[in-house]
Amino acid sequence: MTDDEKPKSHGRLSVSASLKPRDLMAEAPRLKGAWTARIITLFPEAFPGTLGLSLTGKALAEGLWHLETIPLRPFGIGKHRNVDDTPAGGGAGMVLRADVVGAAFDQAAIGTPADRAKWPVVYLSPRGKPFNQAMARGWATSEGITMLAGRFEGVDQRVLDHYAVEEVSLGDFVLTGGEIAAQAMLDAVVRLLPGVLGNAASTEEESHSHGLLEHPQYTRPAKWEGREIPPVLMSGHHGEIEKWRRAEAERLTMERRPDLWSARSPKSEA
Amino acid sequence: MTDDEKPKSHGRLSVSASLKPRDLMAEAPRLKGAWTARIITLFPEAFPGTLGLSLTGKALAEGLWHLETIPLRPFGIGKHRNVDDTPAGGGAGMVLRADVVGAAFDQAAIGTPADRAKWPVVYLSPRGKPFNQAMARGWATSEGITMLAGRFEGVDQRVLDHYAVEEVSLGDFVLTGGEIAAQAMLDAVVRLLPGVLGNAASTEEESHSHGLLEHPQYTRPAKWEGREIPPVLMSGHHGEIEKWRRAEAERLTMERRPDLWSARSPKSEA
Repeated sequence: MTDDEKPKSHGRLSVSASLKPRDLMAEAPRLKGAWTARIITLFPEAFPGTLGLSLTGKALAEGLWHLETIPLRPFGIGKHRNVDDTPAGGGAGMVLRADVVGAAFDQAAIGTPADRAKWPVVYLSPRGKPFNQAMARGWATSEGITMLAGRFEGVDQRVLDHYAVEEVSLGDFVLTGGEIAAQAMLDAVVRLLPGVLGNAASTEEESHSHGLLEHPQYTRPAKWEGREIPPVLMSGHHGEIEKWRRAEAERLTMERRPDLWSARSPKSEA
Repeated sequence: MTDDEKPKSHGRLSVSASLKPRDLMAEAPRLKGAWTARIITLFPEAFPGTLGLSLTGKALAEGLWHLETIPLRPFGIGKHRNVDDTPAGGGAGMVLRADVVGAAFDQAAIGTPADRAKWPVVYLSPRGKPFNQAMARGWATSEGITMLAGRFEGVDQRVLDHYAVEEVSLGDFVLTGGEIAAQAMLDAVVRLLPGVLGNAASTEEESHSHGLLEHPQYTRPAKWEGREIPPVLMSGHHGEIEKWRRAEAERLTMERRPDLWSARSPKSEA
């Protein structure tokens, strides 16, 4: 479901009792059963974006997952619906206000379980725990997720503390906002949901799981620009092919990612 | 510039001489001066996507950078324009063909410098070097970049070898395709281009550069949900504020990212 299809809040919600709206679970607007992402953002028009195409888009259209945006602007203060203010103590940039973001978190919580294992609540920030495949797998087993896509210099720390928000980082780089980070993480999660991908996906997943980089791939034509496919791959000897691929995956991992290589347990190297 | 605005190739280019099209630099369609991203993709409609909004979108509209998609499908083989085939040696998934991707790289190379420091050519893949802020800074000093956004199981290794393509990874997770990864990296680069952001950005950038996570931020109201802004931030003592922020940044980095903390030089900790 996109933002255009669901009822919008045009005013500022009360922020007096942050956990109250969860009592309204009986009238939850969320469809039961399908994994749901709720994105708090100043740019709801960024969604579904690329997630609306290809396999994630097909799954979205089929109702295998749901996407709801919660526009932050309507929760803003005053005539201009201001969502941010200058940092306490001085400094550059603007900070998203606790009261504004808190009201959006309240709306996002309606109809969702309070147990954060069942429904993570995350803020996309370079200060967070680095996102990885294990996190994607964990989120895929939840009922859904609420994500705050930030802008500006950051968000008032009190709202993160009050709602016990988990900070998650896409990587060690700075983005103009959290929207693309949210899309990347949602893509990684949605492809793991039941029915979204076929068998190919599970294989790829396993391959990533054993802690090695993927071996090189080749396909037709057999000869291209004077370059041939490695003869072992054309041999039909499945044992030899498996051995070659394993050796190549180990070589690439050692060369390119010594950090991954040394993080592997001695057992898995056997 | 979006794909709709530029001349399209509706057939398959010759792949006989990979570097030849660079001789055509005199008739380069690329506008001189503005940083340019060329994205080879099966989903050109994914672009500019979120990059068309907010600061990156404003910069795109103002011509501070250019975005060109090179659709992969027209380079496909036969009536159905097939771009992939089964992996040599067996296995799940499909592999992008060297001849098809090679023809797209040839088109992408037209009018670009052969020096990869001036024009990186990258493939977005979880096998690649992890993308980080230093890489974003490097790319921002180039004239532009060519990115191959993959799909399926991978791409024929020979085309990566032949064109000396640099493999870059958004992080240790699996995406359905490279399009969102390309958008994340472009966002990180474009915000560093001259004129795209104001002074706030450079400050944030410096903050990330010194190898520490960002300190907590606060703004009005002074009291919210019984929580107050730390008194030091309201004190007006700039030296004390700076000291508190530094200590908080160090505490967060030690707690959350021992890897970043131990990677810092002893000098920078002083």
